[in-house]
Amino acid sequence: MHYPELFLKKHEDKRLRQGHLWVFSNEIDAKRSPLDAFAAGDVAVVNDSGGKALGLAYVNPNALICARLLTRKPNGTIGEKFFKTRLTQALALRQRLFERPFYRLVFGESDGLPGLVIDRYGEVLSVQITTAGMEVHKNLLVKVLVELIRPAAILLKNDTSQRQLENLSLEPEMAYGDLPEKLLIEENDTRFLINVAEGQKTGWFYDHRCGRARFAGWCKGLRVLDLFSYAGAWGITAAVAGAAEVTCVDSSETALSLAAESAALNGVHDIMNFARGDVFEYLKQAREQNLHFDAIVLDPPALIKRKKDYKAGYEAYRRLNHLALQVLNTDGLLVSASCSHHLSRADLHEILRASARHIDRHLVFIASDGQGPDHPVLPAMPETEYLKTFFCAVSGRI
Amino acid sequence: MHYPELFLKKHEDKRLRQGHLWVFSNEIDAKRSPLDAFAAGDVAVVNDSGGKALGLAYVNPNALICARLLTRKPNGTIGEKFFKTRLTQALALRQRLFERPFYRLVFGESDGLPGLVIDRYGEVLSVQITTAGMEVHKNLLVKVLVELIRPAAILLKNDTSQRQLENLSLEPEMAYGDLPEKLLIEENDTRFLINVAEGQKTGWFYDHRCGRARFAGWCKGLRVLDLFSYAGAWGITAAVAGAAEVTCVDSSETALSLAAESAALNGVHDIMNFARGDVFEYLKQAREQNLHFDAIVLDPPALIKRKKDYKAGYEAYRRLNHLALQVLNTDGLLVSASCSHHLSRADLHEILRASARHIDRHLVFIASDGQGPDHPVLPAMPETEYLKTFFCAVSGRI
Repeated sequence: MHYPELFLKKHEDKRLRQGHLWVFSNEIDAKRSPLDAFAAGDVAVVNDSGGKALGLAYVNPNALICARLLTRKPNGTIGEKFFKTRLTQALALRQRLFERPFYRLVFGESDGLPGLVIDRYGEVLSVQITTAGMEVHKNLLVKVLVELIRPAAILLKNDTSQRQLENLSLEPEMAYGDLPEKLLIEENDTRFLINVAEGQKTGWFYDHRCGRARFAGWCKGLRVLDLFSYAGAWGITAAVAGAAEVTCVDSSETALSLAAESAALNGVHDIMNFARGDVFEYLKQAREQNLHFDAIVLDPPALIKRKKDYKAGYEAYRRLNHLALQVLNTDGLLVSASCSHHLSRADLHEILRASARHIDRHLVFIASDGQGPDHPVLPAMPETEYLKTFFCAVSGRI
Repeated sequence: MHYPELFLKKHEDKRLRQGHLWVFSNEIDAKRSPLDAFAAGDVAVVNDSGGKALGLAYVNPNALICARLLTRKPNGTIGEKFFKTRLTQALALRQRLFERPFYRLVFGESDGLPGLVIDRYGEVLSVQITTAGMEVHKNLLVKVLVELIRPAAILLKNDTSQRQLENLSLEPEMAYGDLPEKLLIEENDTRFLINVAEGQKTGWFYDHRCGRARFAGWCKGLRVLDLFSYAGAWGITAAVAGAAEVTCVDSSETALSLAAESAALNGVHDIMNFARGDVFEYLKQAREQNLHFDAIVLDPPALIKRKKDYKAGYEAYRRLNHLALQVLNTDGLLVSASCSHHLSRADLHEILRASARHIDRHLVFIASDGQGPDHPVLPAMPETEYLKTFFCAVSGRI
């Protein structure tokens, strides 16, 4: 296959050579290779300024990230064989990592498939395509997935705001088969009901799986508070592991009702409480009423979505952690997470240090974690790393 | 109890207020409170320049770190009750974290006991005291430990070079009971023979326990290479978990012979090989002979002991990781660790990124980890964090 050529300005090949996969529009030598000669989704050979080919990328002339590298083999072809190879590789890694078919099957750039995220819920695949360059291969992708996985259903979820940056529609599409209203999945030997079509993101957050397993080992006999519980992943895992009592707090009635169903399914409904409401308000009231918990999980949705929200978001994380520490028993356990890419690991570390000092409690990290192994990090791309979790043992004043 | 007073210079209280526990000699207001008025090990009230008491510390007038905070309660007493409270707290945390009595019981500053490390091997305690301030309480410590744990033996190992900075002897001392030549310990349901008296550090490295459990879940059917294997912790864990074949490489005949005994004990001796030799040489020969492994564990001893060794140490880590990647099969697994405090997490991240790019292989981190939960990190003290491990899935050129 012969693809048109894209030339970078001098020195602008450095990031790609280091392992990154993105080209920004200001890095293109626009005289030599005008971007407007490309349609959104076209494949091109990316060359350095000396004319040395670095690989094949798909192009979007209208996006800030105007090209994303698909392969470092400039003589390759982006077609059925390419996608089959990549998806087979992604599947093989997950099959090595997990015994049961519940995982993130593809995590974008880290799996050599920029703009593509696929979560596998047994026989159902929930797909997020975020770029025009991946969208043009939609039908091919579905075809390869059907052959490789033999799924019952493939849903193109299409509801992430990133799609708007690439002028893509936000309409979901049932690309293959039929989707039941609720699905039963397994994580750490616990079963959960999820709603793929209506749920957040692809429908479930596998990224905390290992953290939840870790927590499960430590919460026997404890009174646990699960904040921003969503469908109850942390709380139910704790209950199954032997927690004495679990309270899930979330603002979504739908999420809590799913959580209640899952609790019943795992036989732990009688030790679980579900409180619908705002987490900040809940914590303030708990503090006023002098309520205390032995273990608190604070796993909010991304509170910093864009860089410009950093300051307000940082303050929200700070307040939440501070409040949580105030309702945590002496010798308690705090699990504090952030999935905001823009809040660094060092930021959350500092928030926890400062909050504990502020109320003069001795806080240590007994573990810290990132996203699970089905969300691999590409070392040259900080953008592929977003999740951080600190497990804190918190005693009184020492 | 009334203790003499130590005054800090203006603004030098900041680090302590942030949660750190050390005072450096140049931070003392020497006119107001001359250091030479103190004997090594004396307890003092530490005051800021305004005379506000920050807590109690033990002092060593001859050391760069001239005082370490023991408590933030200035009216406390450093005696039997103090040590009993601290050790009870440390024990309670470990008993929450682990079912069986094999763990680091005390991790210095993080447990509010600066200068003290205790590893528990069932009924045997291996103790490292690294400061004069802790050494003066040696007998009291032993007494409290005997009452609290009822151990069969307590060994004061006294062989860390830090003791020399505090003018302490390097003679080991059998402080209580008798020590068998070899001890049987358990880690992740695997049994190991260790030699506490002759072994490195306190005799065993519990800090990698969680990482080894993680690795065990992924290495079924693989040909595993365990570099710097010491007593076989990684390799035997992999073999028990179902690895097809395991090769342990270490320069110590004693360590390898212990590893062989432990392998037999766990019934995996027939799939294990033990190669005595230099790891660099081993890897170079393996490369020459075109040997390849499915999974490699690279867990060297600290190659950067002091800051001034940084450059040479960095280069040694770089070469080792580079060589290891060269003998790793396509779609292989590399576990790369560093316990050098002076090699940062970012340094090891960069070494892995660069090495993989250099040979044009696609490397992703499927997990990264720190020291285990019985080695807690005090967030205000970067000195308490030293271990980093990256779990890498490495395919070919993408």
